[in-house]
Amino acid sequence: MPNPPLPAHVTSLLAKPNPSVIGTLRSGGQPVTVATWYLWEDGRVLVNMDESRVRLQHLRRDPRVSITVLAGGDWYSHVSMQGHVTDIHDDADMVDIDRISRHYTGNAYPNRENGRVSAWIEIDRWHGWGEVTQD
Amino acid sequence: MPNPPLPAHVTSLLAKPNPSVIGTLRSGGQPVTVATWYLWEDGRVLVNMDESRVRLQHLRRDPRVSITVLAGGDWYSHVSMQGHVTDIHDDADMVDIDRISRHYTGNAYPNRENGRVSAWIEIDRWHGWGEVTQD
Repeated sequence: MPNPPLPAHVTSLLAKPNPSVIGTLRSGGQPVTVATWYLWEDGRVLVNMDESRVRLQHLRRDPRVSITVLAGGDWYSHVSMQGHVTDIHDDADMVDIDRISRHYTGNAYPNRENGRVSAWIEIDRWHGWGEVTQD
Repeated sequence: MPNPPLPAHVTSLLAKPNPSVIGTLRSGGQPVTVATWYLWEDGRVLVNMDESRVRLQHLRRDPRVSITVLAGGDWYSHVSMQGHVTDIHDDADMVDIDRISRHYTGNAYPNRENGRVSAWIEIDRWHGWGEVTQD
């Protein structure tokens, strides 16, 4: 699998509001996958979670993650990236979740009750299929 | 997260040819995610790989997996299942990959050159969002 940086034809796909699935590790090492919103920014991936999410405990315990992006509406084109979380911080003013929500829905995030937490993912290796091959 | 069996309104969604992403463990425990076809049959998940796939080595070393199914065309409805591989066997006559391919594309699998391997996944726990909540 290639290492970063990712070529422009891949990053331009990653910049769209694609469906994606993130894989984290539960205590004991069981893999856990879940659908997630994400933002591709400056060669990194931003994800954001409700502060109550068990996934947040997973990431604090073991920062290793994998994320698969189903690109371009055609899910036969997809990009998978293995990496690790380099930064976890409270999204105190909901700045991150609002811009992620606007990216996907056009609107600010509707739930203003629960606290949110952001995590930045650095990519260690990646692989593409379909329109997003590494060639 | 609830344990199996999954309720009928969830299994009826799982029975459709949905996009999905499987998470496995690389040597050393790094999670690896990749898009995959699957079949839901008799309360288990069938996946099928080219015999050369590194993912096959992962599964033989550590059978723990997670699979997220983006259900019903609307990816805001999704089901995530954690489980383990109970059986890995050569798909000698391409019986499994052909019925999986027919399920997704209507046609037999086009590549007859490479060997294929099937893996059955038993579900230990699951969670649904959107139209596929556990309630």
